[in-house]
Amino acid sequence: MKTLDDYVRTIPDFPEKGVMFRDVTSILQDKDGFKLAIDELHKFVKDLDFDVFAAAESRGFFLAAPLAYMMNKPMVLIRKKGKLPMETVSETYDLEYGSATIEMHKDSVKEGQKVVIVDDLIATGGTLEASIKLVEKLGGEVSKIICLMELAGLEGRKKLEGYEVDAVVTYEGK
Amino acid sequence: MKTLDDYVRTIPDFPEKGVMFRDVTSILQDKDGFKLAIDELHKFVKDLDFDVFAAAESRGFFLAAPLAYMMNKPMVLIRKKGKLPMETVSETYDLEYGSATIEMHKDSVKEGQKVVIVDDLIATGGTLEASIKLVEKLGGEVSKIICLMELAGLEGRKKLEGYEVDAVVTYEGK
Repeated sequence: MKTLDDYVRTIPDFPEKGVMFRDVTSILQDKDGFKLAIDELHKFVKDLDFDVFAAAESRGFFLAAPLAYMMNKPMVLIRKKGKLPMETVSETYDLEYGSATIEMHKDSVKEGQKVVIVDDLIATGGTLEASIKLVEKLGGEVSKIICLMELAGLEGRKKLEGYEVDAVVTYEGK
Repeated sequence: MKTLDDYVRTIPDFPEKGVMFRDVTSILQDKDGFKLAIDELHKFVKDLDFDVFAAAESRGFFLAAPLAYMMNKPMVLIRKKGKLPMETVSETYDLEYGSATIEMHKDSVKEGQKVVIVDDLIATGGTLEASIKLVEKLGGEVSKIICLMELAGLEGRKKLEGYEVDAVVTYEGK
């Protein structure tokens, strides 16, 4: 029986030297890999009481969407700055070089709603930490964060302390 | 009975004056709207003989994914330049100001595979035309192009002549 790791293609030195890039496209382009990925993520949320999926641009989009459809939940987007047409809240966070800003529509989460955040990867945790802040700015409550892969060596969970975080595959390195 | 149009929020003068922006996020963030969107797209492909979904970044991602999952098909990505880690083929096309380049992994479509391209919107047709070229460069055959919305006033179908194109909602304007 295959596990998700069997479908992950690892690319050394991408996007820069020393990084082992874990490629999610090799999962998607295998019909069994994609089904397994979604089914494994589904296990993390199937018994959870929550209201809405928040999907992180852009790889979170194709992971959250099948879950939202099958569980009959709404899906809202966490996008890079300037992509959302209505009024937004935004969060800026540090990257290795420079910074990034992400946004959500002000009406995407209502006061008191329980939110599951979906992304492909837990790396340094910076994007996920900023995503949590966005949900909370809107009065939402983060029920859980679910991801396909975690790079444990980058210690992203330290930034996410106090939140429930699930990943299907954990890699020890960076 | 509601139709998809009931869930589309229209924003005048975004991203620039004179444009009526058709917002897809209002569909997603309503669980019934999202279900309807996916079910309507599914009607376009449920009796079609094809091999793989090609999803256009980034709104095509959350539309193709539930279809790929429920139909047990693989999904491959059409991404903006520089986002895909393996060897790619690329296509550059003109925008109103400047140009854009999109890419696909070389191994994402195999010779002779039948491909359904998924995006949210048919506007000028430039991105879709470039997407077709990418699939064909890889030896694939475009079986159909499916979208949620079409802005008929921009005459995108002219660029897509000879291909089967389906949209759930058609707006007469631009």
